[in-house]
Amino acid sequence: MTLIESAKKGDITESIRTVAENESVDPQSLAEDIAKGLSVIPKNLFHDIAPVGIGRGLSTKINANIGTSKDKVSFDEEMKKLDICVKYGADAIMDLSTGGRTRDLRTMLMKRSPLCVGTVPIYEAVVRSAESHGSIAKMSVDDLFNVIEEHAKDGVDFVTVHAGLTMKAIESLKQEGRVLDIVSRGGAFLLEWMIFNERENPLYDNYDRLIELSRKYDLTLSLGDGLRPGCLEDATDRAQITELVVLGELQKIALENDVQVIIEGPGHVPIDQVELNIKIQKELCNGAPFYVLGPLVTDSGMGYDHISAAIGGTLAAAAGADFLCYVTPAEHIRLPDLDDVREGVVASKIAAHAADIAKGIPSAIERDRKMSRFRKNLDWEGQISMSFDPDKVRDYRAAVPPTEGDVCSMCGEFCAIRTVERALRPREK
Amino acid sequence: MTLIESAKKGDITESIRTVAENESVDPQSLAEDIAKGLSVIPKNLFHDIAPVGIGRGLSTKINANIGTSKDKVSFDEEMKKLDICVKYGADAIMDLSTGGRTRDLRTMLMKRSPLCVGTVPIYEAVVRSAESHGSIAKMSVDDLFNVIEEHAKDGVDFVTVHAGLTMKAIESLKQEGRVLDIVSRGGAFLLEWMIFNERENPLYDNYDRLIELSRKYDLTLSLGDGLRPGCLEDATDRAQITELVVLGELQKIALENDVQVIIEGPGHVPIDQVELNIKIQKELCNGAPFYVLGPLVTDSGMGYDHISAAIGGTLAAAAGADFLCYVTPAEHIRLPDLDDVREGVVASKIAAHAADIAKGIPSAIERDRKMSRFRKNLDWEGQISMSFDPDKVRDYRAAVPPTEGDVCSMCGEFCAIRTVERALRPREK
Repeated sequence: MTLIESAKKGDITESIRTVAENESVDPQSLAEDIAKGLSVIPKNLFHDIAPVGIGRGLSTKINANIGTSKDKVSFDEEMKKLDICVKYGADAIMDLSTGGRTRDLRTMLMKRSPLCVGTVPIYEAVVRSAESHGSIAKMSVDDLFNVIEEHAKDGVDFVTVHAGLTMKAIESLKQEGRVLDIVSRGGAFLLEWMIFNERENPLYDNYDRLIELSRKYDLTLSLGDGLRPGCLEDATDRAQITELVVLGELQKIALENDVQVIIEGPGHVPIDQVELNIKIQKELCNGAPFYVLGPLVTDSGMGYDHISAAIGGTLAAAAGADFLCYVTPAEHIRLPDLDDVREGVVASKIAAHAADIAKGIPSAIERDRKMSRFRKNLDWEGQISMSFDPDKVRDYRAAVPPTEGDVCSMCGEFCAIRTVERALRPREK
Repeated sequence: MTLIESAKKGDITESIRTVAENESVDPQSLAEDIAKGLSVIPKNLFHDIAPVGIGRGLSTKINANIGTSKDKVSFDEEMKKLDICVKYGADAIMDLSTGGRTRDLRTMLMKRSPLCVGTVPIYEAVVRSAESHGSIAKMSVDDLFNVIEEHAKDGVDFVTVHAGLTMKAIESLKQEGRVLDIVSRGGAFLLEWMIFNERENPLYDNYDRLIELSRKYDLTLSLGDGLRPGCLEDATDRAQITELVVLGELQKIALENDVQVIIEGPGHVPIDQVELNIKIQKELCNGAPFYVLGPLVTDSGMGYDHISAAIGGTLAAAAGADFLCYVTPAEHIRLPDLDDVREGVVASKIAAHAADIAKGIPSAIERDRKMSRFRKNLDWEGQISMSFDPDKVRDYRAAVPPTEGDVCSMCGEFCAIRTVERALRPREK
């Protein structure tokens, strides 16, 4: 039985109970939201992880993309990246490997990961097709579905499938005259396949097969946006929204068949269009959880795209996005290294946290309440314990230490907090 | 004659002409905005710098704080910090030194800086008072004003004066029961002085003297918010707004006397209160330029407060803030080093830039237009030239190089842009 089936019957499963407890929400309401497709708990029948909830009334979750590329293959480094994701508080990872023995790496990651794991199976299907047939376009529909089922069998919790990139959406793309037509890798692969073969998107054409497969493993579908804008000028255009309309239709079909769905979203979006993008997704996709990449609020942030994404991610989550895909400083430049992963996760945590304060998530507010009290008391260990990266804070403080231990080297003896205490509460001292 | 006097007479001074040209605005309108106090060009009569405009319809400007503390004094490092600020595009620096021979350092900075320079003279007055009288509270009013005049004589372009921290505001602070009463150093010094001496704020009580002095050197007053909130819980409270009301009154007096004014603002502010803070400032302070510190959208960002500030700064600037004070990763921990300054400036640039796109500033949009076209053409040198930190991007790319020179090591041969080009425009290739 899939989670939605149980939820529709009013059955409070262990996963629902655990998530409700962690989030301090009513398990009955959570079950109802899952039944309505407003929240999801992506968890493969064959993957033993602590369940994580994504959706209405829940804290904003973050995902970190890891994995090899043809230009850099190191299983050891990918395992370390996973450990960093866990340490710094990612809620999910996606393995986007395209280099080396990708299935072996995935098996290792699945075993090691205490976090929910997602993949984009078309990457592996394409890599295999390029290797065996010498071309992406020669991949057969069975090739693609075999890889998806392999991922499901391996215990993957959610898969990105760009099922909404239809012929009609591509027509809309061509008419639009975009600057950066398609920047989604999955979207680009499908486009090439569809044009070469003169056939409809195989994920759309065989959506029933995808549904059947998802039911079997209780696989969550993350409906990808192959037409996500790759620059601010392309944001919120007819091509993007044409695809989003289809994603909404597909979400409805999945829900009717008891398959959990997440909708993926942009991308590069100017700040004055971020809220609009969330609201239109919620309207068109029946309130399904929204998983955004960034969004990046400028095209020029190279080297600092984790910051552009944190800005957009905060706005998006505050407007209702449920799941943020991190962006690292390496975005648009290279495969991320360990430090990039750490910085990406922390930047994304800050975005989710700042938004959760606005969303009224109690645990978020509580963290800041504790931090400010530790700060008032000049309790440095307390402050460090509330930070998102205690190691960094400790190293920073040690590098330029204060002469007097209770202050910091920014103000030293002229610490405002100490001055005010002395002035306002002299007798208590 | 001060700039406002000229502007009131409809005189298009060289500064106004230069700023109007740089910003692609009409010089006549800029002069009118300066006459109305809606925009400023902080430039001391005795400081030879390229003028920079801050205010209505102009691009968002950023300031970087540098300077020594008692715990770390290195003139050499401070000069290097200045160079970094210039290199990465800060529009102004503030010298907040409290350690070592502060006047000597200021003189050196003033000579070297091509940027507009601000200071907080009370810091130096307090340091001297602590040294000569053994206490902050024993500083005389003349001591304070002598330091302010010294700064003006040295050519400082704008000074922060916490003139709105009145007895009444302190009363409001006490009634409020804040978590972190005062986190502004200047505010804390004044509070101690006022309580110890049982006297009104000397900057408020002698505001006419401040005006007279400012007229003499065409010094711009940056009216500081001594009661800026130090944590989210304290944001937008009666104490903060009580002070802001006074700042509005003081701005009006200065404007009537032809002295340019900037208003300073928070601080720590939850994202759902950022826009409100900008709008209330504009209403209460007659549309005067607003200079915000951050704002930080969480209290827990230690080690990554440049990111918290970039989030808040983007929101603030998009809502109408004109001038962003950078925050570095060292905030709340230690005196910033060279890397901190670089990261702080770039984060703040990104915030200003993302907001300027929403504000409709043509140069901001143009930068992203160029970047996305270079990206489409896989023109790496072009992309690097449009980034905010070309050195970092170049180093990043070199560290994990792609096998094929026209792509990057994230996707390698599976580059989406190349795939799409191949599929959509095969004959052109």
